[in-house]
Order: sequence, then C-alpha cells, then structure tokens
Amino acid sequence: MASPEPSSVRRAFDGTFIKVDVEEWPGGEREIVKHPGACAVVAITAEGEVLLVRQFREALRRETLEIPAGVLEEGESGAECAARELLEETGYRAIRVEPLATIFTSPGFTDEKIELFLAEAEQVGEGTEEAVELVRMPLDQALKEVTGGAILDAKTAIALMLAKD
Amino acid sequence: MASPEPSSVRRAFDGTFIKVDVEEWPGGEREIVKHPGACAVVAITAEGEVLLVRQFREALRRETLEIPAGVLEEGESGAECAARELLEETGYRAIRVEPLATIFTSPGFTDEKIELFLAEAEQVGEGTEEAVELVRMPLDQALKEVTGGAILDAKTAIALMLAKD
Repeated sequence: MASPEPSSVRRAFDGTFIKVDVEEWPGGEREIVKHPGACAVVAITAEGEVLLVRQFREALRRETLEIPAGVLEEGESGAECAARELLEETGYRAIRVEPLATIFTSPGFTDEKIELFLAEAEQVGEGTEEAVELVRMPLDQALKEVTGGAILDAKTAIALMLAKD
Repeated sequence: MASPEPSSVRRAFDGTFIKVDVEEWPGGEREIVKHPGACAVVAITAEGEVLLVRQFREALRRETLEIPAGVLEEGESGAECAARELLEETGYRAIRVEPLATIFTSPGFTDEKIELFLAEAEQVGEGTEEAVELVRMPLDQALKEVTGGAILDAKTAIALMLAKD
C-alpha cells in the first residue's frame, strides 16, 4: 500500500537546517518540521565508562549532558555517522558499532528520526569541537542522572537504558 | 546568573501550534522550534496492562503506538494534563498520578519539554477521540516492542522503561 500523502503542502519556512511544511490532511491542517535525521552513540571505554558531552543548547538556554550525536551527512550510514560524531566530539574511535534502536523524537510535529548505536571506544586523540566538553562516568551513574535530573535529553535517556540491558 | 539570551531573534514562522525563531548566538545562527510543552502518562490497569494509543501521525506518514499524551493547556499542571489526556484518549480515569521524569525531546532544535507520569487507571467510559484506537498490553510486552520496532516514539520508550524500574 502506498504511504498516505497530504492533499496539499505549503513550505512555510525554508531554513538551512530545518524546514516547516503546512500540510492539509483529512484530520485538518498540520504544521510539520522536516528534519534531515540523526545518529547517536553510547560509547563505552575499556574502563567501563560512558562518554558524554556537555554543551550549551541554545534552544533550551542551558547546558545539557548528552551522548555524542549529530545530523546524518549525505550518503552516510547511521553507523558511519555515529563513528564520525564520536571521533569529532570526543577524540575516541568507535570499535564494533552495533544498532540499539531507532526512535522518532516527537511524532506529533516532526519527522526527526534518530538511529541509536552502542560501541566500544578507544582514545586516539582529543575532540575537535571547541564548544563541547567531554565528561566520562560509569554507566550506572549516568543512568541515575536520567531520573536525577542531570540528563534530560530524550535520545540519551533511551540509549543509556537500552545499553544497560 | 541570568539565563543567556540571543543577540537577536527573528520570528520566521508563526504557526497555530509551533513557532520558529531564527536566533543569533555567539556560535552562529540557530533555527529553533518553540513548542508549548507536553505531558504523557504510563497508565496501568488493575490487570497490569499498560494503555497505549494507536494513531496516524501525519509527520511520519504512518501509524504509531504511543502512551497517551498531549499539549499543556493554559494554567494546567503536568499531572492535570496527563489525567485529562488519559481520559480523553482512553476513557480511563487516572488514580495516584506520580512524576517519572522530565525530558527534552530534541535539544538541538526545539525547546519541547515533556513531563512523564505514572498512574493507575480505572475505566469510567470510552475514549472520545475518534482518530485514536486504544491498545492494551502487558508492560513487559510493551517494553519488548521498544527494541522490536513497534514502539518508535521517544517519550513512550523512556516512560515505559522508567515505569518498569
């Protein structure tokens, strides 16, 4: 069966990163954010620590603690994206990258899809993104921060809980 | 310390539901989706089943299986929102609503915040939203669907995993 399509689409915002379409559906008008898709990785060191990044998130006006992640580049697989982002943000190389799950961050208004991965991590240098600070902590401690309030990012919460299993 | 603010803000899309601001920050231009905030609830029946809703999500061009959820109304607390959405979507009344966690769905481009709750559920009628179909299943089975691929919604995955603990 063909995927259902809206009866009309008007591009209301054409940004560099996101687009917004106003679509007509049988249920009414929908405002939908089109997103290029992303990847994220739970990377565990030989010492059993998970690699997190602390960064200022303009949308929230605050810093967050998240697993390394980024937007898919043209022609790149999710696993390649995860390994590239890990290296750029932390200076660690990903070994044995395996899929954890795929999630949609907020199906009510956006098509953003994130592929989540698990990997072993081996340090080969330093992260090259100035605005990102590397934080290492035991996986169990990171899991406590999901309910403890230091980890508020949805993809990070899901990926850490799946990595534990 | 005052929360950091952008040096300039231009409203690029002023929708009924979402807004998009293009903001100037020291790190460059950011396209940010402003969202009213939402609530969601893991509601467990006396038989130990979790209440899920199946609905067509226009943004994804497909159906999803999610916990009951909705957007915060003016002056409403998260727990009130959760109880209202549960009743509207399923016909069940929420008893003993307790907070599970608060998450940000995608800090890279939106301020959307979702308050997650856990509640006991008691049937008092039928759901009143035509486009929503009620699905009941044991919590353990729902958890398997997070990695099994039937549950792809981020808030649902997190809330179910937290409810298990």
